[in-house]
Amino acid sequence: MKGIRIGLIGAGWMGKAHTTAFHNAKMIFGDDVPVFEMISDVNEEQVKNMAQSLGYNRYTTDWTDIVKDPDIDLVDVATPNSMHFEMVKAALENGKHVFCEKPLSLSGEQSQILADLAAEKNVVNYCGFSNLMNPANQYVKDLVQSGKLGKIMRIHATYDQDMLLDPKQPITWRHVNKFAGSGALGDLASHLLSVSQMILGDIQEVNAVDSIVIPERPLPGKNEMGTVENDDLITFLVKYKNGAIGDISASRVATGRKNYFYYEIQGTEGTVVYDLERMCEVQVYFKADADKDNGRDCGFRTVLLNPEHNGFKYFQPAGGIAIAFDDMKTLQAHELMQAMNGGSYEGSFSMGAKVDGVISAVLKSVKSRQWELC
Amino acid sequence: MKGIRIGLIGAGWMGKAHTTAFHNAKMIFGDDVPVFEMISDVNEEQVKNMAQSLGYNRYTTDWTDIVKDPDIDLVDVATPNSMHFEMVKAALENGKHVFCEKPLSLSGEQSQILADLAAEKNVVNYCGFSNLMNPANQYVKDLVQSGKLGKIMRIHATYDQDMLLDPKQPITWRHVNKFAGSGALGDLASHLLSVSQMILGDIQEVNAVDSIVIPERPLPGKNEMGTVENDDLITFLVKYKNGAIGDISASRVATGRKNYFYYEIQGTEGTVVYDLERMCEVQVYFKADADKDNGRDCGFRTVLLNPEHNGFKYFQPAGGIAIAFDDMKTLQAHELMQAMNGGSYEGSFSMGAKVDGVISAVLKSVKSRQWELC
Amino acid sequence: MKGIRIGLIGAGWMGKAHTTAFHNAKMIFGDDVPVFEMISDVNEEQVKNMAQSLGYNRYTTDWTDIVKDPDIDLVDVATPNSMHFEMVKAALENGKHVFCEKPLSLSGEQSQILADLAAEKNVVNYCGFSNLMNPANQYVKDLVQSGKLGKIMRIHATYDQDMLLDPKQPITWRHVNKFAGSGALGDLASHLLSVSQMILGDIQEVNAVDSIVIPERPLPGKNEMGTVENDDLITFLVKYKNGAIGDISASRVATGRKNYFYYEIQGTEGTVVYDLERMCEVQVYFKADADKDNGRDCGFRTVLLNPEHNGFKYFQPAGGIAIAFDDMKTLQAHELMQAMNGGSYEGSFSMGAKVDGVISAVLKSVKSRQWELC
Amino acid sequence: MKGIRIGLIGAGWMGKAHTTAFHNAKMIFGDDVPVFEMISDVNEEQVKNMAQSLGYNRYTTDWTDIVKDPDIDLVDVATPNSMHFEMVKAALENGKHVFCEKPLSLSGEQSQILADLAAEKNVVNYCGFSNLMNPANQYVKDLVQSGKLGKIMRIHATYDQDMLLDPKQPITWRHVNKFAGSGALGDLASHLLSVSQMILGDIQEVNAVDSIVIPERPLPGKNEMGTVENDDLITFLVKYKNGAIGDISASRVATGRKNYFYYEIQGTEGTVVYDLERMCEVQVYFKADADKDNGRDCGFRTVLLNPEHNGFKYFQPAGGIAIAFDDMKTLQAHELMQAMNGGSYEGSFSMGAKVDGVISAVLKSVKSRQWELC
Repeated sequence: MKGIRIGLIGAGWMGKAHTTAFHNAKMIFGDDVPVFEMISDVNEEQVKNMAQSLGYNRYTTDWTDIVKDPDIDLVDVATPNSMHFEMVKAALENGKHVFCEKPLSLSGEQSQILADLAAEKNVVNYCGFSNLMNPANQYVKDLVQSGKLGKIMRIHATYDQDMLLDPKQPITWRHVNKFAGSGALGDLASHLLSVSQMILGDIQEVNAVDSIVIPERPLPGKNEMGTVENDDLITFLVKYKNGAIGDISASRVATGRKNYFYYEIQGTEGTVVYDLERMCEVQVYFKADADKDNGRDCGFRTVLLNPEHNGFKYFQPAGGIAIAFDDMKTLQAHELMQAMNGGSYEGSFSMGAKVDGVISAVLKSVKSRQWELC
Repeated sequence: MKGIRIGLIGAGWMGKAHTTAFHNAKMIFGDDVPVFEMISDVNEEQVKNMAQSLGYNRYTTDWTDIVKDPDIDLVDVATPNSMHFEMVKAALENGKHVFCEKPLSLSGEQSQILADLAAEKNVVNYCGFSNLMNPANQYVKDLVQSGKLGKIMRIHATYDQDMLLDPKQPITWRHVNKFAGSGALGDLASHLLSVSQMILGDIQEVNAVDSIVIPERPLPGKNEMGTVENDDLITFLVKYKNGAIGDISASRVATGRKNYFYYEIQGTEGTVVYDLERMCEVQVYFKADADKDNGRDCGFRTVLLNPEHNGFKYFQPAGGIAIAFDDMKTLQAHELMQAMNGGSYEGSFSMGAKVDGVISAVLKSVKSRQWELC
Repeated sequence: MKGIRIGLIGAGWMGKAHTTAFHNAKMIFGDDVPVFEMISDVNEEQVKNMAQSLGYNRYTTDWTDIVKDPDIDLVDVATPNSMHFEMVKAALENGKHVFCEKPLSLSGEQSQILADLAAEKNVVNYCGFSNLMNPANQYVKDLVQSGKLGKIMRIHATYDQDMLLDPKQPITWRHVNKFAGSGALGDLASHLLSVSQMILGDIQEVNAVDSIVIPERPLPGKNEMGTVENDDLITFLVKYKNGAIGDISASRVATGRKNYFYYEIQGTEGTVVYDLERMCEVQVYFKADADKDNGRDCGFRTVLLNPEHNGFKYFQPAGGIAIAFDDMKTLQAHELMQAMNGGSYEGSFSMGAKVDGVISAVLKSVKSRQWELC
Repeated sequence: MKGIRIGLIGAGWMGKAHTTAFHNAKMIFGDDVPVFEMISDVNEEQVKNMAQSLGYNRYTTDWTDIVKDPDIDLVDVATPNSMHFEMVKAALENGKHVFCEKPLSLSGEQSQILADLAAEKNVVNYCGFSNLMNPANQYVKDLVQSGKLGKIMRIHATYDQDMLLDPKQPITWRHVNKFAGSGALGDLASHLLSVSQMILGDIQEVNAVDSIVIPERPLPGKNEMGTVENDDLITFLVKYKNGAIGDISASRVATGRKNYFYYEIQGTEGTVVYDLERMCEVQVYFKADADKDNGRDCGFRTVLLNPEHNGFKYFQPAGGIAIAFDDMKTLQAHELMQAMNGGSYEGSFSMGAKVDGVISAVLKSVKSRQWELC
């Protein structure tokens, strides 16, 4: 298999994470052959150091060098969210394969433009929704899509953290819409939306309410307060095209919750519950268990992730041995490498555009106080 | 303490449950002195037998005998929901103290009429929201109202059962609106609403979606199908007067859920989670725990119900010893007896009217697809 | 069914609990007809009051009046443990049916004498092991005895409380061997032993170690310390006649544990885990679940107690609705009433003697540091 | 920092795991500089391939080449257990630093010889007890050793798997004592013993019972049965030098258990519970919580692993994000690299000898049916 020459835009934390994931995937899967060709960042000192420590052959302070370079196969966009659209667009226009960290852009409309452009250019277009590769979510997808849970009636989902609970923490880019687009919605609920898209398909309409719990925060380094522009907490009703209904929420001020990506999906033949704080177990109930002995022995099964769940076997040989959050990123890097060689993949720009479309509809609904189509 | 002479309307399952609760309360608390004076039911055979087995002094097939009888202090209405309004109204007009099983009526407007009439007559007006007396809910009330959880930001609540999951189960009164008013909403979510009313106060507006998962069911004893008129599943957004937001749901077709009355309340200083399927434990997180040692030791505490939680001590002397669902009813019977002697109580008709008002607003919202005021 | 005339020896907390259980059983089952004939206690004031409040026809300060009275069918012994032997023996010698709160006596030898005498007299001989009637333990018994768990390999069991953790709590009768016989062993582990006896049958030999964590405690009302004579904590290996092995423990100083009666039973076809702090759920794993789809969906099932589990249906109509610790006592009172009319029962004096025999062997092993036969 | 030249003996699964851990540690910690100098294995084809795929400079089929080579600093022994003693001894005699996968040898006596020899040679002597580096166990160590749990009274620990439950699985080296030394005891309980040694210190004496549940298994490739020589299941009482008592067990036929490394440690001021199947959470109870408000709010805290727990911060920036079982091995590789530069370390040969000494005492006790000194 020939080497995939990568050009990374963004020498920050996420750029490093992507590169590490490519390294890990190479070590585990063997046949992935990333070539770390070029890295760019506006900060010359930083990009020089990162090129060396991460093993990139060349570096630049001008990201357009990367999208134009003939020796680059795959452009990896790992910059702040608000820059994604412009960079991805330029890369696509130059006919590059593109890996973009989520979100594709700050609006459903822009993301759809990118999805359309990628389709037109017929290139690999991969959006970094890492939760899709979690063997737990893959397992739930299998249960739902095989029909084992029957007709899906309902979802309840929330992604809660309390990292921004302290009102003394200063304003960051996350609180400002021109950089972040939205608050907990885009940062956290987006992960639920990508998983929901994979498992349950399209959302038809949404109806939302939000809350800014801490409306002002200190401006960093200043003796004054700045305005928090977006949702600390979001909750919305959803109607799916398949007839299911439900509620999806996220909070960045959810006292006590650390990484509480939680969902329950109820079907007429079974129900699953998943909580990322207990990454390696899935609760599953089968109505078939209740149909025996008048339900004497029925109950939710605590299924420990094991090699029968997609992706797990590459990390551990047997159930009950913990895999890590970062392993989802390794699986993602591998799927992307496979995609570069013609493999299929879940997190296309088309999915990214759908997720961003739901986010735009939710934001619209908060203002209109109406149901909004996605 | 003088005896409280009770007149029970309705010799069915609920009437028996009320009577048993009065007996149990008398046995446990000692100073309650219910006198089982008269019982009524349209079925003469049944009411005669019940009078004997439950120990009522007299019986009648005409419920108006009870509301008019000068030797009755307290009228206990335990008939099907659709009859509550007329019976309670008549009892109040005759100046009786009234105990009405929830709901007060099938609409917020009618329930408000009863609440106003009760206030005018200045009688004890007690609505049977048994979950209010659950020591777990009392504990959460204390935590919230003492400020220990800080400012309340959010509630997530659902009451899920799967008793009506099987599509072969025939149509019952529960599926017909003139008898039931609504489906899972009135039957199940109403319990969440009473507890929410006690703990968080008034809901300002709601925005709802519902689903009839099984639209037709067999007509009992016939070879044809009947129409299910109301929600198998309901979900609605809520905004409280205190600024909190959230989502409340209920389902009677929630595969795998048996008595899953579940809520999470998040405040700026703490969070509580409660699940009635694990009746005797409450999960509580205090931000103060996270403020020590950089959060090294923080986490949700699994608090086992114990004598420090209101009501528990009457049943068990120490934490970790299980109390029962029915003990809530015993505590309710006792509170009512105390109310007859001047004590205060939570579940007044005023609360009943508020709960029924939210239900009416939810039903309205399902049709209008708008936020509706409560 | 004719009335069963009860003579109660002991007007304390346990005597009251027995009487309440008879009342409750009568209310629930209908056909139980206890007649509260006579009550005795050395304290005249107390016995007089108790006779009135509990509804006994007569009272006495001399317990021998009860065992000799021709109008008493069933002698109920609810006195301190060290008096059981003498009283039960006298009752049996007078040909009475006997209900004795556990333990039968303070030694296996004495308890065997009572079991033999009861057999000789051919009377009902009922020992108050209330945990036997817990629907959860009944369910586990069914799983084991039906073979659904395969050949039983192993048990781990512990009964932990922290009620005596505080070293400032004074010496009580529990700490003195002539009154208590042993510490956590007789008080707590005995409950595990009765349940183990019912589910797994006879223990063949034991090997024990103990610990007195707080060797001295204040003498009540005095300014000096007294000696704690028995185990705060006991742990012993067990070998069963059926080939299973395991460990059984108890602690009265187990920090954080409130009513942690916990066991795991592993068989070649399945495993069960039960924790009395979550009284209404049993964790069950079936190897058969693992044999499908390479174990993809296998896991412990959280089974909520429901009407298919022996005894539950008398309290609640559906799974997930909590029953109480005290309901075990009601079921026990009912089983005893049935036994008085010829019904079979689990907790005979023969079982009591076996449990007390294991306790004697454990105490012997602590001293001998050897395996001891039971 | 200069490179540490590694000579690996054993080109199997464990050798690969060690090498991967060194790679991962280098990537994460940066300052570790392993040099993969030489690898040996009896199988020439295999060792040649492994040298290439793992990046070793040289390979050999004679392990003595490695222990004698002047260009090797650290000998890494990753061969089958029964070969450890001879190889480690030779490496030490040649003055090499040694990393030996657990166990050091098949008996406490032999392991003590190695510990003494290593002390005499004053070289790094590192035994691969990977669970020591688990941030959860490090956290428990901190809680115990800081006195936050008070005086330790008791431990209950078990390591249960069901990998060998199926009686049709053939005999392997694990079932034969000359290769394995013991069954579940050495394979699984040894991990509990190393963690116990780190947290609670020396065990004084033990008293054991075992069970061979499946006494015969098919001989691989033959039509006859072979004898299982060692424990499928082991349970033993322990007395610690610090006065604590308890029970430790392991089973390789524990139906339903996958990687159930579980322990509870009870101290007079607090209790911890840990279950490796839920790797990222520790249950902790503090008596201090019970001393407030009469215990109203006390309960076990579900502490999610976070950067305050030793080792966690190298993998994730915040609590609730899952780390993996393999991360323990990475931390171990790093600790070893640090040790080569003078750093301290937990898992010395001295600890290895203590663990193997307990195992020898347990095996002796099974036969003698007595308490045995460790």
